[in-house]
Amino acid sequence: MRIKLTISYDGTGYAGWQRQENALSVQQVVEDALTRLTGARAAIVGASRTDAGVHALAQAAHFDTDSRIPPDKFAYALNTMLPPDVRVTASEAVDGDFHARFSATGKRYAYRIWDGPHASAIYRNLSAHVIYPLDTDLMHREALSLVGRHDFAAFAASGSAVKDTVRDIYACAVARGDDGFIVFTVRGKGFLYNMVRIAAGTLIAVGSLKLAPGAVGRAIQSRDRLDLGPTAPAKGLTLVGVEYGNIVENARSRNACMPQRTRPEG
Amino acid sequence: MRIKLTISYDGTGYAGWQRQENALSVQQVVEDALTRLTGARAAIVGASRTDAGVHALAQAAHFDTDSRIPPDKFAYALNTMLPPDVRVTASEAVDGDFHARFSATGKRYAYRIWDGPHASAIYRNLSAHVIYPLDTDLMHREALSLVGRHDFAAFAASGSAVKDTVRDIYACAVARGDDGFIVFTVRGKGFLYNMVRIAAGTLIAVGSLKLAPGAVGRAIQSRDRLDLGPTAPAKGLTLVGVEYGNIVENARSRNACMPQRTRPEG
Repeated sequence: MRIKLTISYDGTGYAGWQRQENALSVQQVVEDALTRLTGARAAIVGASRTDAGVHALAQAAHFDTDSRIPPDKFAYALNTMLPPDVRVTASEAVDGDFHARFSATGKRYAYRIWDGPHASAIYRNLSAHVIYPLDTDLMHREALSLVGRHDFAAFAASGSAVKDTVRDIYACAVARGDDGFIVFTVRGKGFLYNMVRIAAGTLIAVGSLKLAPGAVGRAIQSRDRLDLGPTAPAKGLTLVGVEYGNIVENARSRNACMPQRTRPEG
Repeated sequence: MRIKLTISYDGTGYAGWQRQENALSVQQVVEDALTRLTGARAAIVGASRTDAGVHALAQAAHFDTDSRIPPDKFAYALNTMLPPDVRVTASEAVDGDFHARFSATGKRYAYRIWDGPHASAIYRNLSAHVIYPLDTDLMHREALSLVGRHDFAAFAASGSAVKDTVRDIYACAVARGDDGFIVFTVRGKGFLYNMVRIAAGTLIAVGSLKLAPGAVGRAIQSRDRLDLGPTAPAKGLTLVGVEYGNIVENARSRNACMPQRTRPEG
């Protein structure tokens, strides 16, 4: 039986999603919990290989098991064994041809920024800090240039071996919340490695007038990484959700970085 | 010269605001930084003695110094010496008769709750977790009974030696944010020890139908702690701000638990 997990984590204490030899990953703690739970060696596949320090509200993953545990009970059982900075928020049975990574039809990310003279104490691991004030209107207009099907070669991390650098971006927005934090949200079919962090760093550079507006469009044309801003820090980034099927909702809200409540209130 | 500090902290790693013998407090780390900065032994007075695990967006404090550091530079200088979970967000010169605690004319607190089967991984130290769904309309109506001048004896922590248990509460609200978290905000002239946490625990009990609506009114009449719900956990509570002077704004926003941005955008 194939089970899909939805997993939320605070990435601060982890070397990213992907299992590694000499550092603790989120994948490892979930696989270890699953192995203890079912008694059989477990291997899980995640939708997105989030970097060290990157958070997730709803990472998706799948695994196969012979266990007789009811599918929806895996979340409860795993949470009794996982550290509190990793929570399985849902578990369900899926078809055998479901693949957390290859079946994904979209992903949503949010990048949170605090612009002010002093960093945030409470959200220090959940936001990037910029000491100068940012112009969010400029940033929003710049972000809209990301939307569409473009060759994002300039947005690929240096040394990346990916051949096809064309990606579809469905929606982008930059807005300052009532809490004073700026949130850049982006939804697309898929992203190059470090693409969202390079986009966030570029928007910060434009918003602080260090880079002229139009940088995104110029870099799409030039395919030159040097036309963009620096890669923004990992800790500001959150994987908000992974989509499967023909979901064509809009990534409208500046609160897209926060948990999306699906059940009705009350 | 008397200096007022505005201080934000993540209370997770501290035994509260107040200096103690055998545990690390926020007051101690700020005083130690100040002593290193000025070379003179420093004593600071805070507006609110927040408990272990309670957070602050804008605690207020004052101290006297002979230092020639310009008043507004203390924030920058102290932040170079403080751990990242404590930030001085502002420093300014005040009159010699200003007292962080006794001059305060109001305080605002926010209590954050996640109601759902699984706790929040990312906000695990910034919210209380309740596994059953809460009725926020019921909670909001109940919270309004707190508003006014009442004898809050029932809301005092057991063993409290305070004689005068009458307090003025200016405003209360309970609302679910777009992020799915429920936030209870309260603004008043002053609060009894544990009063906000007992109020939060009572609202949770009413919102989950474990306590009949009207509990707050009954307890104000009876002065009996047993008419109320349990004391809610410290980690959900944040001191949002301390007011001085005749500020009669409304504690309107459900985002009152988040940093209040005072300068204009952009």
